[in-house]
Amino acid sequence: MSLKHFLMHGRHIPFLLGIQMAFIILFGVFVEYDKEADSGKAINANATTNEGNTIGHYYPMFQDVHVMMFIGFGFLMTFLKKYGYSAVAVNFLIAAIVLQWATLCQGFYHTFDGRRIHITITSLLNADFASATVLISFGAVIGVTTPLQLAVMAVCEIAIFASNEHLGLEILRISDVGASMLVHVFGAYFGLAVSCVLRRDVSSEKEGATYNSDIFAMIGTIFLWLFWPSFNAGLAEGDAQHRAVINTYYSLAACCVTAFAISALVSKEHKFDMVHIQNSTLAGGVAIGTAADMMIHPFGAMIVGSIAGTVSVLGYRYLTPVVNRRLGIHDTCGVHNLHGMPGMIAGIVGAITAAAATQEEYGYSLYRQFSARAPLAGTPEFKALHHHIEHLEPGLGRSASMQGGYQIATLFITLAIAISGGLVTGLILRLPIFGKVHQDHLFDDEMCWEVPEADHPQLEQ
Amino acid sequence: MSLKHFLMHGRHIPFLLGIQMAFIILFGVFVEYDKEADSGKAINANATTNEGNTIGHYYPMFQDVHVMMFIGFGFLMTFLKKYGYSAVAVNFLIAAIVLQWATLCQGFYHTFDGRRIHITITSLLNADFASATVLISFGAVIGVTTPLQLAVMAVCEIAIFASNEHLGLEILRISDVGASMLVHVFGAYFGLAVSCVLRRDVSSEKEGATYNSDIFAMIGTIFLWLFWPSFNAGLAEGDAQHRAVINTYYSLAACCVTAFAISALVSKEHKFDMVHIQNSTLAGGVAIGTAADMMIHPFGAMIVGSIAGTVSVLGYRYLTPVVNRRLGIHDTCGVHNLHGMPGMIAGIVGAITAAAATQEEYGYSLYRQFSARAPLAGTPEFKALHHHIEHLEPGLGRSASMQGGYQIATLFITLAIAISGGLVTGLILRLPIFGKVHQDHLFDDEMCWEVPEADHPQLEQ
Amino acid sequence: MSLKHFLMHGRHIPFLLGIQMAFIILFGVFVEYDKEADSGKAINANATTNEGNTIGHYYPMFQDVHVMMFIGFGFLMTFLKKYGYSAVAVNFLIAAIVLQWATLCQGFYHTFDGRRIHITITSLLNADFASATVLISFGAVIGVTTPLQLAVMAVCEIAIFASNEHLGLEILRISDVGASMLVHVFGAYFGLAVSCVLRRDVSSEKEGATYNSDIFAMIGTIFLWLFWPSFNAGLAEGDAQHRAVINTYYSLAACCVTAFAISALVSKEHKFDMVHIQNSTLAGGVAIGTAADMMIHPFGAMIVGSIAGTVSVLGYRYLTPVVNRRLGIHDTCGVHNLHGMPGMIAGIVGAITAAAATQEEYGYSLYRQFSARAPLAGTPEFKALHHHIEHLEPGLGRSASMQGGYQIATLFITLAIAISGGLVTGLILRLPIFGKVHQDHLFDDEMCWEVPEADHPQLEQ
Repeated sequence: MSLKHFLMHGRHIPFLLGIQMAFIILFGVFVEYDKEADSGKAINANATTNEGNTIGHYYPMFQDVHVMMFIGFGFLMTFLKKYGYSAVAVNFLIAAIVLQWATLCQGFYHTFDGRRIHITITSLLNADFASATVLISFGAVIGVTTPLQLAVMAVCEIAIFASNEHLGLEILRISDVGASMLVHVFGAYFGLAVSCVLRRDVSSEKEGATYNSDIFAMIGTIFLWLFWPSFNAGLAEGDAQHRAVINTYYSLAACCVTAFAISALVSKEHKFDMVHIQNSTLAGGVAIGTAADMMIHPFGAMIVGSIAGTVSVLGYRYLTPVVNRRLGIHDTCGVHNLHGMPGMIAGIVGAITAAAATQEEYGYSLYRQFSARAPLAGTPEFKALHHHIEHLEPGLGRSASMQGGYQIATLFITLAIAISGGLVTGLILRLPIFGKVHQDHLFDDEMCWEVPEADHPQLEQ
Repeated sequence: MSLKHFLMHGRHIPFLLGIQMAFIILFGVFVEYDKEADSGKAINANATTNEGNTIGHYYPMFQDVHVMMFIGFGFLMTFLKKYGYSAVAVNFLIAAIVLQWATLCQGFYHTFDGRRIHITITSLLNADFASATVLISFGAVIGVTTPLQLAVMAVCEIAIFASNEHLGLEILRISDVGASMLVHVFGAYFGLAVSCVLRRDVSSEKEGATYNSDIFAMIGTIFLWLFWPSFNAGLAEGDAQHRAVINTYYSLAACCVTAFAISALVSKEHKFDMVHIQNSTLAGGVAIGTAADMMIHPFGAMIVGSIAGTVSVLGYRYLTPVVNRRLGIHDTCGVHNLHGMPGMIAGIVGAITAAAATQEEYGYSLYRQFSARAPLAGTPEFKALHHHIEHLEPGLGRSASMQGGYQIATLFITLAIAISGGLVTGLILRLPIFGKVHQDHLFDDEMCWEVPEADHPQLEQ
Repeated sequence: MSLKHFLMHGRHIPFLLGIQMAFIILFGVFVEYDKEADSGKAINANATTNEGNTIGHYYPMFQDVHVMMFIGFGFLMTFLKKYGYSAVAVNFLIAAIVLQWATLCQGFYHTFDGRRIHITITSLLNADFASATVLISFGAVIGVTTPLQLAVMAVCEIAIFASNEHLGLEILRISDVGASMLVHVFGAYFGLAVSCVLRRDVSSEKEGATYNSDIFAMIGTIFLWLFWPSFNAGLAEGDAQHRAVINTYYSLAACCVTAFAISALVSKEHKFDMVHIQNSTLAGGVAIGTAADMMIHPFGAMIVGSIAGTVSVLGYRYLTPVVNRRLGIHDTCGVHNLHGMPGMIAGIVGAITAAAATQEEYGYSLYRQFSARAPLAGTPEFKALHHHIEHLEPGLGRSASMQGGYQIATLFITLAIAISGGLVTGLILRLPIFGKVHQDHLFDDEMCWEVPEADHPQLEQ
């Protein structure tokens, strides 16, 4: 193990140790428990229950989302015959980096008081959401990037993602409870842009599945499908949370049935295609994300889910091959079909639903749902409303259609930032210092794993 | 892909698209959020917490049950060497259909106010319970039915199931918290009746397991075993929920140990048999289901679990081969041993426990547990009791033994409805329009999946 | 199946049936629902919600821990190519035994009132913690022990474990919220001592992984990693629970990144090593366990996690081979590296943090965290403090450094009891009556399973 060898093959080691050390130092300087988790500042020192502590409220859905990130995304990508170790384990590594880095990036925008970032269970949940963004992008470049390239991509992407999230939620004041625009659209187009810049000739017989690898992948699919209501409702509260769970559940059920039907319609001999089942059945969760807590009604959610399932299967069958050939984008997992287009649908559905929201339908909770629609401070409208709603915060006095316009604007701004961010990041990843995957090692665990002797069973099979 | 080919192999496509469209229309006409999930009707528009919203109470157990349906049942059935895709993915499709259809069928009985069905998180949980019924029946016919046949079976079964459930819970007023009679007995005997009508000659070397497929199946087993307390306690509350969790936990633990021991006792060379471990370890969850929230005491639950584990293993070893030969019923997964007989045990145990329930032991919560035992409205007994229990609803003035009789009656009524419903459904499924599995494709994913080239690894092995 | 054959190969059958019967009798005599789960004693017979019932508080984290025991430990051990059935299924059997036996052993120490043990959801959670102890020891002897030996080991170990737990928590009054000393250190060194006594010559080509078995094992790894915050916070409350979740989350994230880096540093060609990824990424969960609910701050947790990840990988790479050679301890899963050394780190970190705890930092909750630090009853200090804290219980008037000393003392007492208990148990397991694994059957499911014909695919591969 000479120095030369280390410089060739071990470059990720100092990078990983370096960022981990940097995270520790930054956490030491900037991060502190919020008062709910701080013994000295706890509301009630006698507290022997969780009353008044938000951990009980957020924890179950947080854990569901946590499972989605590590089991869901990790196993979804194990479908490649010789890339199972990397799929699940590199997913694990990258997500663990992002949880820490996103705590810092999001914390600076959300809870930084000039001296400290204050963390609670919602910081953890937000960091998990952020990791989804990177894991989606991962799907667009899996098999053609080294762990070092992925780690660098993660660091760049999260910084840009957190800025765009801040822009959307706090400056443009839009509603995106399931983060379909801010996470799914962002992650998909960022990843596609990176893939476009890296453009590798990737024709490889290793880019396929085996019988067992497809079943492993279904573990990921099913857990993602099951816990998606927690993803879309995790940050909502009260009736909005209840509604987000219901809408997501029915959107996903409708999407699943439709995706099976369309898959059989467009596949050879009218059989089902595993790629569609593993991915397109989930498109309904993405597509309802933005409007999940709005009054879209169960049948509305089911329409959205059915459309998303259809679009996603058609994308895999007809669009991806064309995009690959024409644009040289190699979208390994088809994230454009699972996250990209369904995320665009989500943004549009969200904007329409927001533009149709009235106080008649939403009651006073309209102003909780769309905070910018509350009247401006000091206006007579604000005073009249404040009479009815004790905790009303002044808003921007937006009309329904203005809110819809801001929603659409955010969708396109997100798209623009994701694509340009991805292009720049792709250029960075092409720097020789970060290495690249040798042609023989595309979609092959041998690149960074010791694979059992005389084994690699999935290939022989 | 000619029209003729479509008519031969693509018949499930219009059916799936058709029912999905029908569901959307029916939801549009009949289904609405209940007030807890309706922004305009939310109890408190200022609400920024979940206080007073039932989502927080039901959601964690709901998700456990959700995992049982899709991961538990889906993977439990992957044990077949060439049928893994179908096991997990067709399970997924059928369950997604049922979630929507059961919402409608159960809603008409439970929450229909003449105009609308009002849905909450408990509607979702009930729909998941309903899907268990169909997935149990699925186990009796897996490998010998087409997806179209299964979808048709699901639609018929749920309509009958919902009627029987209404009869049991709301007319006969019985207690069946873990739905061992209404779901397990119903699903098992319905499926066996269907299997009996379809009676296929199914001797196939494909009906076996491989090393990997057995381990995949254990994923299903373990998740079912772990989350069964949530299944049995999900719809209970307070001390009854607490008790249902405890009883199910110890029943399952005792059942697991006993099933291992009996498996070794009756198997070749006193080895353990994977079929028993995958299935019979779960019988304790079924067998305690009806009495799970009753005062059966932990040791009582453990006795029930031990008996169920023993009966289930003996059923696999000695009864199933005979039933197959004599009645021509091909019970692929042995649902009679896992759900049928243990469900019968549950019904009997529930009846005995109900017949022994006294106010001394249960206190005033006797009338919450067995609502029909509350005195009739207007009687002096009712007035006396109302004095002590503020929210007392008038009942039917049943004695303990009468309640026990109604419990037993419900068991046999369920059995009768399930068997006759299954026979009729089986006849429907034999209509030529629904097609049938070609002899070569029994237990074979090739029937409706594109299996990876030169692969089908589990067979070569 | 002659009697002689039964006596040779069926000895585990009467043992399993016998202990199950004994458990039922002991439960019948001694175990009763606590009032929260007892219908007659329920606080409020009108109760239709979970208010005031602890089931809602504990249940979600309890289920996470439950998943860790059966999916986590079970699948983590499936990495062996020919030992997958045993790993997941014998794990299942042993844990089911322990859940019942630990309820009795821990109940006698915790809730026995002279007549009855009173059980609630926390009894179930504690029994799951206890099962972790045995499953950790299982990892040290997997492949070289029969199921009967393991069941006997479990019975002995839990009796000793419960005594040591009582000594630590109730007599020495130490704080160990994640049970890193009482479960991890105990389980690891107990198992290593047993392994040392059994000392088998275990060079076997079967002791390796295949591609698929490694991916199965990752299911275990990821679920353990995800739910570890629930393990460390499950028995805490309020701000302490919130803090335990945060600390464990960041400790694990830092540990994961560090373990990947160090794995690449010390492995051939700077590749990652699956053994390290499957195990060492979890060391951060163990190492933060004792101090998880203390004011160690996020960056402190990350330092602990990074150190644990490093030590664990180095242990696998350099220490285990030496220990195997020199001491004849065959540590199949490397529990010394995952539970032993990280548990020692946890004990030391906990002692240091406890010794640094001041009332300034913790406020009045200092006396909830470290109950022995409350002043002695009747002293002026107690009276002064009682003025501020309504529910204050008198303590032992310990200083911070005294508490730290007791923490360290408990670590070494646990070590001593575990090692001596393990040595004695190992001698018991060598009694001819319990049989032993034939040399040909080491690490081989054939010993106690009927393996599919012409299959055993993982070997051919």
